Amino acid sequence: MNKQPIRLAVLGLGTVGTGVVRLLQANFAEIKRRTGRNIVITHVGTRRTRDDIDKHIKQSADLLQIVVADDVDIVVEVIGGTGVAKDVIIEAIKHGKHVVTANKALLAEHGNEIFALADAHQVKVAYEASVAGGIPIIKIVREALSANKIDWLAGIINGTGNFILTEMREKGRSFADVLAEAQALGYAESDPTFDVEGIDAAHKLTLLASIAFGIPLQFDKVYCEGITKITTQDVKYAEELGYRIKHLGFAVRRELDNGEQGIELRVHPTLIPADELLANVNGVKNAVLVDAHPVGQTMYYGAGAGAGATASAVMADVTDIVRMLNNIGENSNPNFVPHLAFLPQHLDNTRILSSDEIISGYYLRVQVKDDVGVLAKITHILSLLGIGIDAILQKPAHELGEVPIIIMVDPVLEGKMNEAIANIEALDSVVDKVVRIRLDELVE
Amino acid sequence: MNKQPIRLAVLGLGTVGTGVVRLLQANFAEIKRRTGRNIVITHVGTRRTRDDIDKHIKQSADLLQIVVADDVDIVVEVIGGTGVAKDVIIEAIKHGKHVVTANKALLAEHGNEIFALADAHQVKVAYEASVAGGIPIIKIVREALSANKIDWLAGIINGTGNFILTEMREKGRSFADVLAEAQALGYAESDPTFDVEGIDAAHKLTLLASIAFGIPLQFDKVYCEGITKITTQDVKYAEELGYRIKHLGFAVRRELDNGEQGIELRVHPTLIPADELLANVNGVKNAVLVDAHPVGQTMYYGAGAGAGATASAVMADVTDIVRMLNNIGENSNPNFVPHLAFLPQHLDNTRILSSDEIISGYYLRVQVKDDVGVLAKITHILSLLGIGIDAILQKPAHELGEVPIIIMVDPVLEGKMNEAIANIEALDSVVDKVVRIRLDELVE
Repeated sequence: MNKQPIRLAVLGLGTVGTGVVRLLQANFAEIKRRTGRNIVITHVGTRRTRDDIDKHIKQSADLLQIVVADDVDIVVEVIGGTGVAKDVIIEAIKHGKHVVTANKALLAEHGNEIFALADAHQVKVAYEASVAGGIPIIKIVREALSANKIDWLAGIINGTGNFILTEMREKGRSFADVLAEAQALGYAESDPTFDVEGIDAAHKLTLLASIAFGIPLQFDKVYCEGITKITTQDVKYAEELGYRIKHLGFAVRRELDNGEQGIELRVHPTLIPADELLANVNGVKNAVLVDAHPVGQTMYYGAGAGAGATASAVMADVTDIVRMLNNIGENSNPNFVPHLAFLPQHLDNTRILSSDEIISGYYLRVQVKDDVGVLAKITHILSLLGIGIDAILQKPAHELGEVPIIIMVDPVLEGKMNEAIANIEALDSVVDKVVRIRLDELVE
Repeated sequence: MNKQPIRLAVLGLGTVGTGVVRLLQANFAEIKRRTGRNIVITHVGTRRTRDDIDKHIKQSADLLQIVVADDVDIVVEVIGGTGVAKDVIIEAIKHGKHVVTANKALLAEHGNEIFALADAHQVKVAYEASVAGGIPIIKIVREALSANKIDWLAGIINGTGNFILTEMREKGRSFADVLAEAQALGYAESDPTFDVEGIDAAHKLTLLASIAFGIPLQFDKVYCEGITKITTQDVKYAEELGYRIKHLGFAVRRELDNGEQGIELRVHPTLIPADELLANVNGVKNAVLVDAHPVGQTMYYGAGAGAGATASAVMADVTDIVRMLNNIGENSNPNFVPHLAFLPQHLDNTRILSSDEIISGYYLRVQVKDDVGVLAKITHILSLLGIGIDAILQKPAHELGEVPIIIMVDPVLEGKMNEAIANIEALDSVVDKVVRIRLDELVE
């Protein structure tokens, strides 16, 4: 083949950008065997010049100049954030360049606009690397499950959070202690808010939900709860009951009692049965469980972050584009696979349910004075509201005569759970706020 | 859109064919939202006319007539086997029809010829459903991991075998007992040879190895061992040692001591650590673990068979083709993704290693007369051949004064293991053939 090489501009030379450069060096021949094409980096966008980069690659801090350069076919944006990254992606699209990005924040918050612009300019904005790192979950949901009706998905989609919860469970360490280590190891950002408050997971869930259900991106409607309030005590009690606490993103399609369709978008700590595969995904690893008709449950597991895993996803998008460019003729549309899996005109406005309307099971921990009558009062409150009890675990009193009572309740509307909890907290014997953690059996 | 519908001929109305018909009925609208196109079945190929099929669908037993009909764009072959299925696929290709098939036996044994013909006629032969049912492992390896160098993969790719091993472990049942149940449940064929002798898994492994490494299909070179000799005793001892026995297909890229590249293709029962996700894939479920650079280990899990899972995979291939047909113009080549992941001219002839050259760890069970000196003699034999011992488990004697000694040895050339076993069996105190099961730590 005497085709010209495909030329990349890699914008951002942090962990991921450097990973992309290294991947191409290591696997150049293997990729050429698959695509029939040389893929070369012609430009890197970097604030300070790096002398460990091949001399033939132009380095510049002027990103807007790079994306319009004649010797750039595909722009790889691995800067992150919603500022300059947005400007360069828009400029690239307007100049007819295909874009590959790992930027979940940008797409979750501005993807509707960016994808519309890409469709108008007949370029692809590919974003496999933006969710779950090396797990090809975007391709799987958009393409491999494309004949299914997806009922729900649940994902461990923040590696730092999963690392913290794993250490808390395996070693009995405290949240703060493990977080400090995660920061030292470089898993967590120096400002870990996006990780531990669930915002990063909410960004990713926003993308997953859109491609699963065919709805516009609606980051602002995701219910988002982090792991900062999880105690080693609750981790331990969960274990005793046969459950593990994982920080999960859920996207759930529901039919309401009135026949209306609704979608739950929520990110929160969740007790799941300890023998589920998802409960056994440990450390910084990610996994996504998808429940769809007729395929049933499928699960996808791998590294959710890191230079190698993310570069793998970035370059999978690049090879997709290269294979397409090699083979399609005049008047072809590069976006056979719609950006959000469903054709833009077929995205629908199924209502995103408010947090009051969410249905889930719960683990409740109630701190009570050691008083024989209190359990009966609590179960009475639950029973009055029609809330089913699945299990009760009463622990021995510790100092001060206080006893934790653990109650696992069947799926219930959050609004009703709130009411029950308010009533429980009003009891004289209850000495503290009720700790509540959602619970899901992940039943098919 | 006023595009004409895409017209399918579904050849074969067994479990999978009926699943495809039902899937299209159930998810017609959802698929149209994703593809922008009506997909209709115009023909079914069936030996006897069925009255539960829509009246607009033509039914016929003359498959060769169906595939050449004007109102057929895509031929879905779900007959199975290497006889008539081969004839109709070749006829379809020659008439410019795209083909979607679930036929692993046919592709593993005749795929080189079929794919070459499809390339020559510029049609796709898509085969997602042929490996691991609802798990989109073909798309994942061919596309999502396309920037990686794949080092090895290991898969539970026969659901019947996994069901049998799961029941043996969980309930202490015998192989024969569970097999009879699997046949009654319809998991296993009435002739279960393909399942329990590993032939079905070897067919699938042949396909996976080709797309992982870029080598021609070489079914005849797969080392193949089934599960018929696994006893509940060995399942139990494995468990005591922290392992589980799974029937796995392995494709492993190796550099030999002389610098030559080699590939191991093997299907056999294997002890793997009980805490690995793969060890926790139970019942009829399948899973494939892929170790690749730089993404690391990723794993893919789901139903490996059944009407719904297989229909999901078949129709994913159909939607891929429909999306392509909708969007590509004149002079486009439908096979952007090469049939075997690598371009035909870049498939290489890396040597498939003979069974003597395979390296793996082993679980050995040696039945000995209860004689204090025998363990020393056995370890001396292993030591003389440089075979490392990882663990030894000596069980109490049962009737007749016979004792099983379990030895787990480090990875070793099979040729050397054979030699050691022959020497062990020659010992006076050894009363039976040595039971050997391969062992793999699945280390990244």
